[in-house]
Amino acid sequence: MAEGIGALLMDEVVPALDKAGGKVTVVGVGQVGMACAFSMLTQSICSELALVDMAADKLRGEMLDLQHGVIFLKNIKIDASTDYAVSAGSRVCIITAGARQKEGESRLSLVQRNTDIFKGIIPQLIKHSPDTILIIVSNPVDILTYVAQKVSGLPKNRVIGSGCNLDSARFRFHLSQRLNIAPNSAHGWIIGEHGDSSVPVWSGVNVAGVRLRDLNPLIGAKDDPDKFDQLHKEVVNSAYEIIKLKGYTSWAIGLSVASLTSSIMKNQRRCYSVSVNVQGHHGITEDVFLSLPSVLGENGVTHIIKQTLTDAEVHQLQASAKTLWEVQQGLKF
Amino acid sequence: MAEGIGALLMDEVVPALDKAGGKVTVVGVGQVGMACAFSMLTQSICSELALVDMAADKLRGEMLDLQHGVIFLKNIKIDASTDYAVSAGSRVCIITAGARQKEGESRLSLVQRNTDIFKGIIPQLIKHSPDTILIIVSNPVDILTYVAQKVSGLPKNRVIGSGCNLDSARFRFHLSQRLNIAPNSAHGWIIGEHGDSSVPVWSGVNVAGVRLRDLNPLIGAKDDPDKFDQLHKEVVNSAYEIIKLKGYTSWAIGLSVASLTSSIMKNQRRCYSVSVNVQGHHGITEDVFLSLPSVLGENGVTHIIKQTLTDAEVHQLQASAKTLWEVQQGLKF
Amino acid sequence: MAEGIGALLMDEVVPALDKAGGKVTVVGVGQVGMACAFSMLTQSICSELALVDMAADKLRGEMLDLQHGVIFLKNIKIDASTDYAVSAGSRVCIITAGARQKEGESRLSLVQRNTDIFKGIIPQLIKHSPDTILIIVSNPVDILTYVAQKVSGLPKNRVIGSGCNLDSARFRFHLSQRLNIAPNSAHGWIIGEHGDSSVPVWSGVNVAGVRLRDLNPLIGAKDDPDKFDQLHKEVVNSAYEIIKLKGYTSWAIGLSVASLTSSIMKNQRRCYSVSVNVQGHHGITEDVFLSLPSVLGENGVTHIIKQTLTDAEVHQLQASAKTLWEVQQGLKF
Amino acid sequence: MAEGIGALLMDEVVPALDKAGGKVTVVGVGQVGMACAFSMLTQSICSELALVDMAADKLRGEMLDLQHGVIFLKNIKIDASTDYAVSAGSRVCIITAGARQKEGESRLSLVQRNTDIFKGIIPQLIKHSPDTILIIVSNPVDILTYVAQKVSGLPKNRVIGSGCNLDSARFRFHLSQRLNIAPNSAHGWIIGEHGDSSVPVWSGVNVAGVRLRDLNPLIGAKDDPDKFDQLHKEVVNSAYEIIKLKGYTSWAIGLSVASLTSSIMKNQRRCYSVSVNVQGHHGITEDVFLSLPSVLGENGVTHIIKQTLTDAEVHQLQASAKTLWEVQQGLKF
Repeated sequence: MAEGIGALLMDEVVPALDKAGGKVTVVGVGQVGMACAFSMLTQSICSELALVDMAADKLRGEMLDLQHGVIFLKNIKIDASTDYAVSAGSRVCIITAGARQKEGESRLSLVQRNTDIFKGIIPQLIKHSPDTILIIVSNPVDILTYVAQKVSGLPKNRVIGSGCNLDSARFRFHLSQRLNIAPNSAHGWIIGEHGDSSVPVWSGVNVAGVRLRDLNPLIGAKDDPDKFDQLHKEVVNSAYEIIKLKGYTSWAIGLSVASLTSSIMKNQRRCYSVSVNVQGHHGITEDVFLSLPSVLGENGVTHIIKQTLTDAEVHQLQASAKTLWEVQQGLKF
Repeated sequence: MAEGIGALLMDEVVPALDKAGGKVTVVGVGQVGMACAFSMLTQSICSELALVDMAADKLRGEMLDLQHGVIFLKNIKIDASTDYAVSAGSRVCIITAGARQKEGESRLSLVQRNTDIFKGIIPQLIKHSPDTILIIVSNPVDILTYVAQKVSGLPKNRVIGSGCNLDSARFRFHLSQRLNIAPNSAHGWIIGEHGDSSVPVWSGVNVAGVRLRDLNPLIGAKDDPDKFDQLHKEVVNSAYEIIKLKGYTSWAIGLSVASLTSSIMKNQRRCYSVSVNVQGHHGITEDVFLSLPSVLGENGVTHIIKQTLTDAEVHQLQASAKTLWEVQQGLKF
Repeated sequence: MAEGIGALLMDEVVPALDKAGGKVTVVGVGQVGMACAFSMLTQSICSELALVDMAADKLRGEMLDLQHGVIFLKNIKIDASTDYAVSAGSRVCIITAGARQKEGESRLSLVQRNTDIFKGIIPQLIKHSPDTILIIVSNPVDILTYVAQKVSGLPKNRVIGSGCNLDSARFRFHLSQRLNIAPNSAHGWIIGEHGDSSVPVWSGVNVAGVRLRDLNPLIGAKDDPDKFDQLHKEVVNSAYEIIKLKGYTSWAIGLSVASLTSSIMKNQRRCYSVSVNVQGHHGITEDVFLSLPSVLGENGVTHIIKQTLTDAEVHQLQASAKTLWEVQQGLKF
Repeated sequence: MAEGIGALLMDEVVPALDKAGGKVTVVGVGQVGMACAFSMLTQSICSELALVDMAADKLRGEMLDLQHGVIFLKNIKIDASTDYAVSAGSRVCIITAGARQKEGESRLSLVQRNTDIFKGIIPQLIKHSPDTILIIVSNPVDILTYVAQKVSGLPKNRVIGSGCNLDSARFRFHLSQRLNIAPNSAHGWIIGEHGDSSVPVWSGVNVAGVRLRDLNPLIGAKDDPDKFDQLHKEVVNSAYEIIKLKGYTSWAIGLSVASLTSSIMKNQRRCYSVSVNVQGHHGITEDVFLSLPSVLGENGVTHIIKQTLTDAEVHQLQASAKTLWEVQQGLKF
């Protein structure tokens, strides 16, 4: 407080507190991290936001730019630092940092590089917020969620990958376009490995409880007369297409992660397709993370929905589990 | 959970938590209490709401009616009981309960009756939420805020009366109508005792920083050519008029209290005209509560703004303080 | 504008407009009408609100009480009058007015009295807002929606009864409590006649696309081991229970109607169980209104979902249609 | 609609409308344009959004990325095209497109280049939305708002520059930090030319109606003991600093423009420091645009507040007007 004029203007009853209750930290202020942050600010999901990044200049620039807009929002405290102390007391920490694949680089090599980065980030976050819940957004998200759980030593319910929540959002958008109804009246779930190997669960696709499979038994199959198989292809291609067109994806992933965070912060117990530890589910024996519909509350993932899957769907999940497990075996912690 | 089907539908990772972070309790489910509750729910100000009242039937009816609307809101946990245990862990407790003036009853008699009611309510609230902040809405609000502070033994920053925040809102609405601009672009403050003796601070009335007094030096005076003195009269008469017309006031006080609660829950540090302990302010020597512009954050009232008042305004505040003090002297705790 | 000071404070560029784009009228300022109005205001669903009622005092009291809270909301224009001219230019008109059943009064007699009331209301609304959409909330809602359509002469897509949207909300709340997940992750539909004869469509009840009937083939039946049949009974009893406890229902119906209005005002195309003309649906031959899942957009009901119903469910719908039709036959327009 | 399955799933009552009422177009999908768009989407300010840009790939990428997030928002229609037909029926058009200053380029040369660009954009917008209101964000904003008005031929109330609304937001943020209160409880206005020559109106800076100048008569002066003169310097330097740190500014300008748009779309009549035609104000004789506190409603700028300025402040405004006028004289339309 400006001693001079502040003392003239106000009497202090008690010192102001420097912190608000609902704190969230975003690690990484690239396009994805900032879309997460801005989505949370404009939707009042947190009442305090900390940003952490190694690029001090970019970090400070983003902090100032957000702070100058605070007057148009609820008064949310925004802070940023290269020092993880700024994250202290966060209820949720969102990790968007990580290396991108170099040309010709193997997947294992990329994952190892990101594992090394996570070894620098995660112990720092846990040190300052021992009760936090981690949301992993960096790719490949399923393996990195596994890495985050190992490195953090947190129980499985407190480490969540953003996983197929975005794939499901894209699926429902395309479905809603086909049917010309609101996306949140068009229900459908994409599960499994985020990306090319994701699994659309056609048995659950419905509008007002009407299963589209009951109207079209071939829905989603290669010979589907309605060509809904195209829908899943569009979802898988979406990321590639957008990256080709604008260089990266940001807005939808930002909104997706903000929604997950909201369900945790307010104990809303909403159900999302997020990357969770699936050992013991659908016959998977490996210690891996894949997306399944899961209930998110204040203590993270509390329940995983047991969907009725076809043999082909189960097989695909198990194949993904195997692939991920093999990559994970090669990692050095 | 329905054991049978729940177990078929979901695997439990960890037990769900039964509570969300941001809990608020409303005591009294009359029209005012319910307008406070509904305002907070529709604006997502709390993530858990407890209602307490002695009228078990009415209480349960209101709880069910709110719960049935939850699907149209964020998933907010709503509970209600005649037992104060339901309020445990509240960050803010809003008291709207209290007796109404009987015909021919003296003010002292009314206040004594409400004091006795508060002696039943407040220790229960503090027992279950020792760190809570109290917002008093029951009338006469200034004396009852004093009573609440004495009965609770809480430090002064944690007991707040809704006071002249509503009077100021009415003032700004009428001002905005005169000038045909948005109420939140028309600034003005009503301070002092809630009700007939409230004080409009004409020196602070401004639009875009332009003091209306600089345009009309007589503003608010009896011989004001623009008749702005009428504006304060309309504010004072508002409560009487609405009570005559519809029997009670509810919506505006509900929104007013929801706004105060929001500033506390999210540590927004907004400035409101609320009833605070004014001993030592503007030459007041008595231990009384009156409305002054105050900064509200997570730990309640942290600062009181030192407005520059005219002698007449100061005199009016001091007279109110004296009157309240005399009533308070007659109270038996 | 206060000529004197307003002219000193501001230069006029062009005259201010007196109206905003998104206008809604609520007819009837009882507990239901006011809960509709307040739900829309706090959620910024309309940018202009008109209230109409015959009780001039109560009407003015409610208007003033809302206006005094405007500063805590977006600046929404609120007006009220016993003269329907105040409703001019409304995009949606919500009718909550109507007589209540007298002791010993026949259903037909009640409906005839409300028909007479509607004959006073609806032509006035249509005169001032020829392009409006009507939402009927007054009970018995299904017949009164029919009456409203006849009296107004509007095409069927522009007359909607709030119908089973509230029943569905109650169903999903109770379902969510059983399963301990968010209500908007627990899907289920109540259709047909609002009230005792409503039909729960068990085939559509699902979580994350998992049909509960696939987990429990007896779900909802009398011998359901999980006793989900109780759930529908709770829904049917809800209104009676709340009316017994608090005298009326208000909050949930208010939020329900606000949600319908939002989908219309913003052309959201969300799917709701609302009372629509069902002639030709599910083998119904009568010109009656019953709730079916329907898509609501800017021009009202555009599509009705064809749910796959059991014979028993179809039979129940047809029986309701017959009953309603018989009552309608006795009405004098 | 998928003919096959759509027809099985739904009966059409009437064809769905393809448009929602509250449409806004953003021209230019750079960082500023997208921050404007995303701010409006997350805050439900429009119910339909059109994006226009010449870079077809980037444009389509941004559209898809936003569309995939729609499920986390209200169902807002989002479209994009290089063809201005997509903007038809917009109530507000926001122009963020424009060339950036090349090294060594004169201001006149830059403005001429942007004038040429505006000559391509604006007639197209007006053609498709003859009743629209234009908000100019491109820099130098004051001259380009003049250009937009000339090129469009729209009346002055319907062409608005984002101007000093952002400068004022920054000012209030810094002020709030000094005093440790919420930015929207700390009032102050920056007027005049957006950028280095902007004018802080110290006489209007107040908290709860208490003018800080009354507490510190030297406030904002060079020898201010409280060094508030620094505050304005920080504001002026903000843009430079952020551009140096992160390459551009985006979030705060996006939120600022979203707020202006909201006041127009909902006829809120809030007061903002925006760039308006100031001929005849404060002794300015030139036909130029500068920021003054202005009331924004459904038909654009309706009133300009007449602030009481010091001679120095008036002089500064007049000097800016002269400079702008000289540049404007050199422009070829």
